Amino acid sequence: MRTILQAQSLPGAISSVQLMMNADDNDDCAVYDFPGNLSLVVGMDFVRGPGFVLFQERYLNYFDLGYYLVVANLSDIAAMGATPIGMTTVIRYRASLTDKDFTQILEGIKAAAAYYQTPIVGGDIGEYTETVLAATAFGITERGKYLKRRGTVVGDLLCLTGEIGLASTALVYFTKARKQGFLLSEEEEAILLRAWQRPVACITEGLLLAQPGVVHACQDVSDGVKATIDQLGEASAVSFKIDEISLPIHPITRKVATTLNADPIAVALSASVDFQLMFTISPKDLTKVQQAFLSRGSTLHVLGEAIPSSTPSYLLRKDGGSSSIPGRAWDQQIKNVADVILEED
Amino acid sequence: MRTILQAQSLPGAISSVQLMMNADDNDDCAVYDFPGNLSLVVGMDFVRGPGFVLFQERYLNYFDLGYYLVVANLSDIAAMGATPIGMTTVIRYRASLTDKDFTQILEGIKAAAAYYQTPIVGGDIGEYTETVLAATAFGITERGKYLKRRGTVVGDLLCLTGEIGLASTALVYFTKARKQGFLLSEEEEAILLRAWQRPVACITEGLLLAQPGVVHACQDVSDGVKATIDQLGEASAVSFKIDEISLPIHPITRKVATTLNADPIAVALSASVDFQLMFTISPKDLTKVQQAFLSRGSTLHVLGEAIPSSTPSYLLRKDGGSSSIPGRAWDQQIKNVADVILEED
Repeated sequence: MRTILQAQSLPGAISSVQLMMNADDNDDCAVYDFPGNLSLVVGMDFVRGPGFVLFQERYLNYFDLGYYLVVANLSDIAAMGATPIGMTTVIRYRASLTDKDFTQILEGIKAAAAYYQTPIVGGDIGEYTETVLAATAFGITERGKYLKRRGTVVGDLLCLTGEIGLASTALVYFTKARKQGFLLSEEEEAILLRAWQRPVACITEGLLLAQPGVVHACQDVSDGVKATIDQLGEASAVSFKIDEISLPIHPITRKVATTLNADPIAVALSASVDFQLMFTISPKDLTKVQQAFLSRGSTLHVLGEAIPSSTPSYLLRKDGGSSSIPGRAWDQQIKNVADVILEED
Repeated sequence: MRTILQAQSLPGAISSVQLMMNADDNDDCAVYDFPGNLSLVVGMDFVRGPGFVLFQERYLNYFDLGYYLVVANLSDIAAMGATPIGMTTVIRYRASLTDKDFTQILEGIKAAAAYYQTPIVGGDIGEYTETVLAATAFGITERGKYLKRRGTVVGDLLCLTGEIGLASTALVYFTKARKQGFLLSEEEEAILLRAWQRPVACITEGLLLAQPGVVHACQDVSDGVKATIDQLGEASAVSFKIDEISLPIHPITRKVATTLNADPIAVALSASVDFQLMFTISPKDLTKVQQAFLSRGSTLHVLGEAIPSSTPSYLLRKDGGSSSIPGRAWDQQIKNVADVILEED
């Protein structure tokens, strides 16, 4: 009945808007194909905000939480290779929140939205028994030209847009190493905190990747690198061989891990919310993508390659040996990934 | 820099997607005009869920909360006269929530989504220190054919799609009257609870109103009838004269209010979340709209008319006298509207 009404009221229109990917596809966003050669991508993320350990330990403020909310949501748009066109936000605050802190959340949201030229177009603000920070981001691509998680074939190169592990290193450092008396320089501390205070959504890189149509699969690493490798593998029924030597691990990560007798690779590959994009391409297209990235000042790292799923994904160590891929995937139960990483070593 | 890139990557497309209404417009939804003769409307709502007094008093269960989340969000789409095309949801639960209760939330969401033929296309599920139920709903209209809050002119009729006050009456009854020993019949109790358990988003009515292009302004009454009258008035700088005799107040509301020596009109017009649509049309278009509603089995009530804003909105009483419009608007601070209504009398 209702369907008939809809069809009547929008002759031709409903049938030309098609849901291409939904929750079952387990991708970063849902996708609708629209008339006029456009696809609409939509993603919705909640962030724990005051639940962040570094917020609780006062390394992050309310401005940072607002900023983070926007970036976490735009990262899903980036992972689809889409151009953001807007966001809606839900901001619920406890009665005890000061006006100043509330304003800081809004200012953080505004700053990130301005940086990414993405208007906040609506949403919901009000009191609640707990802080709630959630958002929905919208983006568009040329029809059908969005990036998916599925599509990797054996022989593909596994690539990454930038350094990984700074976010988890920040946790390991500020909640563990620093408390044991190991001190980084002020500058190094600032680099670590920046991963949480001003995370970066790889919008530019996503657009660069979507354009030439050479990317087979893509997602952001917001669940951590190991988790992303696993998920990309599962989506296309392949495994990955990763070269240790190619992992773009920041010197600070090595420094902090070593101090704690932890494996720097485990720190970098665990649930580190670095918002880089991980993607697969055919080796023959590497030069093309590299050149596109170079021309925009973006970085590209080749981590390894897709192999048949008969062999589980593994890490080729510098010494020629191999091991399973270290690190822990993001998990709701993990409050501080530092606990888990250090436990394992 | 980023703008140039976007423009390059989507030649012609970005410029043809235009943000027509955003948060500043204070409407039920944001609106984008898309190529292909479509407008996209987007609304995002958080619901207090376990914060509902009737949930806390065990008249509602987790299924009802899931169902309510969907309807509250679709009501915004209805108020724009749009056809829903999908929703994303955030569901965060406390560690203490049982699997059964969690499943009930999902089942409630699924049931409402199925009823309104609106797919849940994605979102976020996980643990948190407090329950979080939020969603974003998307809908489409013919380009530019969405309903706005602004546009009422003096002389317009103020109309409503159905009965009002059952939701607030339920609060007044179950949290006050019933505790004082006043008992309605089982059937009457079921009618009151239904306003919360199976609220109705007026999607059909919104579509009927959008089609002929005769509606000047429209919004849903999710903040209560008095609040909606005030907001529609403010949006177009008019006031409204309301006829008491025309208010579609349910007999149960009169019964419960009388028992408590409260004004039934105050109960019906206060923060009652009935999800009806309130809209304004020119008197000359009334017959056309009435016929369209009749043909679909929908009801339409004319409450009064728009008057110049030099006179504040008022209620023309049955006895010929007049008063300001009774009732309290929705307010974050009001946990149970019953407290406020009864306080006033």
